[in-house]
Amino acid sequence: MPKFEKIAYKPIPVRELLSEMKNLSELMIDLAYSAALFNDKELAEVVLDLEQRIDTLAYLLDIDVMVAARGDPRDAEALIGVSTVAAATDKISDAAADIAGIVTHGIGVHPIVSSVFEKVEERLMKATVKQDSAIAGKRVGKLDLAARMGVDIIAIHRAKEWIINPKKTEKIAAGDILITRGAPLGIKAFKDLAEGQTKQLEEKY
Amino acid sequence: MPKFEKIAYKPIPVRELLSEMKNLSELMIDLAYSAALFNDKELAEVVLDLEQRIDTLAYLLDIDVMVAARGDPRDAEALIGVSTVAAATDKISDAAADIAGIVTHGIGVHPIVSSVFEKVEERLMKATVKQDSAIAGKRVGKLDLAARMGVDIIAIHRAKEWIINPKKTEKIAAGDILITRGAPLGIKAFKDLAEGQTKQLEEKY
Repeated sequence: MPKFEKIAYKPIPVRELLSEMKNLSELMIDLAYSAALFNDKELAEVVLDLEQRIDTLAYLLDIDVMVAARGDPRDAEALIGVSTVAAATDKISDAAADIAGIVTHGIGVHPIVSSVFEKVEERLMKATVKQDSAIAGKRVGKLDLAARMGVDIIAIHRAKEWIINPKKTEKIAAGDILITRGAPLGIKAFKDLAEGQTKQLEEKY
Repeated sequence: MPKFEKIAYKPIPVRELLSEMKNLSELMIDLAYSAALFNDKELAEVVLDLEQRIDTLAYLLDIDVMVAARGDPRDAEALIGVSTVAAATDKISDAAADIAGIVTHGIGVHPIVSSVFEKVEERLMKATVKQDSAIAGKRVGKLDLAARMGVDIIAIHRAKEWIINPKKTEKIAAGDILITRGAPLGIKAFKDLAEGQTKQLEEKY
C-alpha cells in the first residue's frame, strides 16, 4: 500500500511536477538541517508533510511519463532521464525525512550533529497566519520583510499546496503556514506578527 | 562485496567524517545538476568519484560509531542520530550519482530536465592544473578570481583528498583538479589558465 492517500489522477505537465519535486527536495534539506540544529519539532513535521507531497508528485509523474511514452520504446528511452531525476529528488526527500525523524522521534540531536550543521547561520521557522494578524491580506512585497527584519518568506503552505519562493505579488491569507528564513530575532518577531501576538507592523525591530 | 577498495581503518574523528560527508553530498548535488544541464561528462565523472569517497567515509564512520558506543546501550542510543545523518548524506550522494549517471551513460538530457535545472545561473567546471600553469604554486587568495573573472574555486581534489571551499591561504599545486563556479566566460577563461592554454593571469577578461 502506498503511504499517501488515494490520489485522483489529473494530468499536470511533467515539467511542472519535476520542477516542484526539485524545489521541494531542496527546501526539505534546508528544513531538516534547521530542525536538527534547533531541535525544532514543528519544522521536522513540515519535512514529513512535504515527503508525503513528494510521494504524491512522484506517483503523478510516473503515470504522466508512462502515458507520454505512448508505447514507443524510443519515446520511453528519451524519458528515462526524467524518471531518474524524479527518483533522485525522491531519494533526497527521504534523506531529509530521515534527519527530521531524529527530531520527531525525540532521539535527541547529538552534539556532533549540531556542530556539523552549525554553519547554517540563518534559521528557518514556521508561523501560521492568524485571522487578526497584521499581515493577513497583505502582499509579500508590501511587507518589505528583508529590509524591516531581515526575514524572507521561502515557502507558503495553503490549501494542501506549497508555494516555494513566493512572488512579491503573492497575497498572504489567514490560515497560511509560512516558512521563513532569517536571523533568530527577526524570525521570532515575524512569528509574533503572523500569529497576532504583535499587532503592528512596526518600522524597526 | 563493498564497491570501494579495501580501506585501512584509521581513526578519524566522527565529527570530521560527518562534516566531510555533508559538504561532499551538497557539492555532489550542485555538480550533478550542472553536469545534467550542460551534458558535461567530466563533471558527471567527478560526481561518481565523490560517491566512492562518501562510501569510504561512511564505512569509516560506521566503525567509529560502533567503537564509540563502547558496548553501552545508552551511548549507542545517543549515537543513533549521528548514524542517521551519515546515512542521509549517503542517500543524497546516491541521488546525485543517479543524475550524473544520465550523463555518463549518454542517455541524453531530456529538455524537461534541462528546463527544470536551468535556474542554475552559474555553471560548474572542472580544470586540471598543469605544471606550466600561471596559477601553479599560487595561493587561492592571491589569484583574486572573484574580482578578476567572477570565478570561485569551490573544491580542490589533491592526492585522493577533497578540499571543499578552500581557504585563501591554500596553495594551488600542479596536478590539482579544481572545481570552479562562475559565469560561462569566466570559468572557461580560468580553465585555459589552469591548463596552460593562457600563460598570463591578466587584469581583465
